[in-house]
Amino acid sequence: MNKYWSKLVSQLEPYVPGEQPQDQQYIKLNTNENPYPPSPRVLAALKDSIDGSLKLYPDPNSLQLKQAIADYNNVSIDEVFVANGSDEVLAVAFQAFFKKDQPLYFPDISYSFYEVYCKLYEIEPKKIPLDQNLSINLSDYTGENGGVIFPNPNAPTGKALPLSSIRNYIEKNTETVVIVDEAYVDFGAESVIPLTKHYPNLLSIQTFSKSRSLAGSRIGFAIGNRELIEALERVKNSYNSYTLDKLALIAGSTSIKDIDYFQHTVNTIIATREETSRQLQALNFSVIPSSTNFLFVKHQSVAAETLYLKLKSQGVLVRYFKRPRVDNYLRITIGTEDEMKTFLQRLKDIINS
Amino acid sequence: MNKYWSKLVSQLEPYVPGEQPQDQQYIKLNTNENPYPPSPRVLAALKDSIDGSLKLYPDPNSLQLKQAIADYNNVSIDEVFVANGSDEVLAVAFQAFFKKDQPLYFPDISYSFYEVYCKLYEIEPKKIPLDQNLSINLSDYTGENGGVIFPNPNAPTGKALPLSSIRNYIEKNTETVVIVDEAYVDFGAESVIPLTKHYPNLLSIQTFSKSRSLAGSRIGFAIGNRELIEALERVKNSYNSYTLDKLALIAGSTSIKDIDYFQHTVNTIIATREETSRQLQALNFSVIPSSTNFLFVKHQSVAAETLYLKLKSQGVLVRYFKRPRVDNYLRITIGTEDEMKTFLQRLKDIINS
Repeated sequence: MNKYWSKLVSQLEPYVPGEQPQDQQYIKLNTNENPYPPSPRVLAALKDSIDGSLKLYPDPNSLQLKQAIADYNNVSIDEVFVANGSDEVLAVAFQAFFKKDQPLYFPDISYSFYEVYCKLYEIEPKKIPLDQNLSINLSDYTGENGGVIFPNPNAPTGKALPLSSIRNYIEKNTETVVIVDEAYVDFGAESVIPLTKHYPNLLSIQTFSKSRSLAGSRIGFAIGNRELIEALERVKNSYNSYTLDKLALIAGSTSIKDIDYFQHTVNTIIATREETSRQLQALNFSVIPSSTNFLFVKHQSVAAETLYLKLKSQGVLVRYFKRPRVDNYLRITIGTEDEMKTFLQRLKDIINS
Repeated sequence: MNKYWSKLVSQLEPYVPGEQPQDQQYIKLNTNENPYPPSPRVLAALKDSIDGSLKLYPDPNSLQLKQAIADYNNVSIDEVFVANGSDEVLAVAFQAFFKKDQPLYFPDISYSFYEVYCKLYEIEPKKIPLDQNLSINLSDYTGENGGVIFPNPNAPTGKALPLSSIRNYIEKNTETVVIVDEAYVDFGAESVIPLTKHYPNLLSIQTFSKSRSLAGSRIGFAIGNRELIEALERVKNSYNSYTLDKLALIAGSTSIKDIDYFQHTVNTIIATREETSRQLQALNFSVIPSSTNFLFVKHQSVAAETLYLKLKSQGVLVRYFKRPRVDNYLRITIGTEDEMKTFLQRLKDIINS
């Protein structure tokens, strides 16, 4: 520790994202990116927007993007918050809602960034174990809490809760904010967005990085009661007036209007996921039924870490987490049909050798 | 205050940026944007980069951009930190260095975001008055502090300190981090970057929004000792792995390589500033000598607020701050020669009417 650092800095345990190799051609099934490009309308709109007006600050209120998100989700514009990726939305929400006297509840096996935010914003975490089937059981989330956050579907398991379970839970947990991190919701789960009209403490957080093929543009959003949104705006406007740049605003607002392309690519990924799941089971993997664009799988006899390393040496990146309870699983992003065929062939060769 | 908000939220006093009208054609001399477009090489590189690879996350370490900044400034890559605008760089730096037991020192008339960060990150501010000439006098910044930040040149005054004064000060203030916010340094002041090799507690923060015509892309950076940079990285990686999107990385790294364009536009703005200053003095304004891309001016007889409102009604936006000591000043961004001619003509008509 350097004497110039604040005490905070040495306590931090920064998040480590999945590898983003810049120099080599991998089949990249490790960071849950979409294998299909953004909508052609997005690329055309971006090309049209590259001009001298980049000299000007973007709209600090991101109204064009918020309106597009509001229209698509049948909410009003003041029920929408946007920021630089859903990670930034989460960071703002942690400051706005979870700096409380009671601990924040979240699943022990989940998006590992939640713990990292807790360190940075000095929030006490309380990790609730997944049940024996690696499911979130919301009846374990009762008790005095300063807030609750869980992904639905959960990552890295890929498992979704039905909307009825979440509604039952929020009926009881009325005193603190409940955030449902819906990064993967478009691949087969039900969003809580319609419920946010009825529950003033419920917030949905979503991203353009997965189902909308725009990880490179960094766009995330939250939808909830306008007083929750006001809190997010107050925090955001206290550290950066302009979190979304001009081109990201254009990419996002154009993307959300191309409904056909969105539905087509999402449906293709779901079909590829189901086919990949069948093939993996035939190779003696146990596969958790997924509502996401990835599969969480375990082989009958070959260790996950071995498979991860051998696949990497053969040009296929998947994600391996060296963490209790899941250290024999691999998380495999769903790529194109061709990528999955190549992946399955290399996997077969590794297992048979 | 809503019961779901953390206590912090209701204490915040968010920053209010200058108006960014989205719907009307103004001569915009209010937010210190560059009147010239980004380098043509930047626009060409951006157009070439609009493709399907936007589906992938950007490099979380922004190496391409950091290397370009390092090369230009004769430092090594691990002495460079980048983020989503210099406001985000500042926000990260406040968390990394200024959460201390002692107060943070900064000028009372300065970038008003500093106070806003203090509220968000629970840092005690100690505002040091500018001297009677509206100058920063660093001999007033001695004493037990948890850190020091000031812009050089200062905003909104436009006044610069010589490098020798800053060196003298940093020789004495060795126990806490001193940040020099160099947002406007390219328009006529000396950067502290060469000094960062010798002083492990000195950090320069700069932006691409002013001298590089890229306010729309949101790019800021810091240069300092690698241990200071490591602290910034630790904070950044604890809330957002990917603060700079793919297109911003390309815009920034291309911009910094077009040295001729940069020097030409900066020199043009400086020449226009000096000519505008002469004209304003002829209209009975007192004009503070500026080392920035704006002028801070006061009229002999007509109130600044009146001028601000009348100019706005005639389609010219300038910045007016209703704050003690400077509430009779206008801050006027330097536009193109034509814009300044129109501005001066309208101003003359208002004063004569």
